[in-house]
Amino acid sequence: MTDATARKRGRPRRTESDAVGTRDRILDAARQQFSESGFEKTSVRAIAKAAGVDAALVHHYFGTKDQVFEAAVEVAFAPAVKVRDAVLEGPLDKAGERMTRTIFGLWENPVTRKPLLAIVRSAVNNEAAAAVFRRLISTQLLRRIAGELDAPDAELRAELAAAQLVGVAMMRYVIKIEPVASADLEEIIARVAPVVQGHLTNP
Amino acid sequence: MTDATARKRGRPRRTESDAVGTRDRILDAARQQFSESGFEKTSVRAIAKAAGVDAALVHHYFGTKDQVFEAAVEVAFAPAVKVRDAVLEGPLDKAGERMTRTIFGLWENPVTRKPLLAIVRSAVNNEAAAAVFRRLISTQLLRRIAGELDAPDAELRAELAAAQLVGVAMMRYVIKIEPVASADLEEIIARVAPVVQGHLTNP
Repeated sequence: MTDATARKRGRPRRTESDAVGTRDRILDAARQQFSESGFEKTSVRAIAKAAGVDAALVHHYFGTKDQVFEAAVEVAFAPAVKVRDAVLEGPLDKAGERMTRTIFGLWENPVTRKPLLAIVRSAVNNEAAAAVFRRLISTQLLRRIAGELDAPDAELRAELAAAQLVGVAMMRYVIKIEPVASADLEEIIARVAPVVQGHLTNP
Repeated sequence: MTDATARKRGRPRRTESDAVGTRDRILDAARQQFSESGFEKTSVRAIAKAAGVDAALVHHYFGTKDQVFEAAVEVAFAPAVKVRDAVLEGPLDKAGERMTRTIFGLWENPVTRKPLLAIVRSAVNNEAAAAVFRRLISTQLLRRIAGELDAPDAELRAELAAAQLVGVAMMRYVIKIEPVASADLEEIIARVAPVVQGHLTNP
């Protein structure tokens, strides 16, 4: 079998390809709406309008608004895999710095900041969104990092480490309180990474 | 002048007393509404209704919705004075533990948790509320704690210390992610207080 044949045979049929395009357009629109307006003020109708489809199609592909949110955020949660890999790849005594740099990298980048803002704004104000966020952060991030720590209190350690980073991100990127909002990123990392490391591995 | 005369002379006139009662009722209603619904979804009309007064009276006493929020939150910010005093009173090498215990004390108490939730929910989703929150936390808390630290980077230190506590509070009380949400409070304090202390005073 030549490469060309493989490509041809691997290419989805036209209808499948259209469906994938529509799903992606709906998810993009959903992420945009949820990050701008938060969970409560975003309607399936607004998502459908932004995606250029009928609201019934959004329901057809994803179900309820909760389920649209979960799908949108789950994709946006792909960066969590980066955080987890950053923590797990390399010596454990530098895991705190890798975790700190990866999370601030996601917040500093405008493309990944948007879904993060959507998650924070939605989870703080809505129980359904908070439940999705809880489930994703536990299964995608905390449990996997904890699995590498080999300590009975590993999940608590991972979560307190994450809490330091969540708190700094809230003050720097969400509420924007000085001096943290404008401080040099390297200075913040120099102060925060040892704390994250301490939560993860201090005896 | 006898005590009785002093009390009588010091008692406000009936109209003043009525006005104070109405103002307080409006502020109580505002705190309730803002904490349940957040800044954006709370209307002056809803606050007026909950307080049993006309919306025009709310505007008369406080002005715009932003100003009602500021007044409601400023009173709710009284606990910040407790945090500041807790940090400043006593030896500096235990300031981290005092700050940690005071802030968790406010979150554990259902009465003070409500205005804190109102502030977090509103500030995360609305720029006007965030601006009020920034101003209050800077002037009421960070600058005053920083004033006691006697270091050129004192405000950054105070804010990173606060960030660790904000992050844990977000996970334990707002989004409620396990294991932090159900962990024994003393265990959390034992892990977090040294971090707070480190931010404040580590060389």
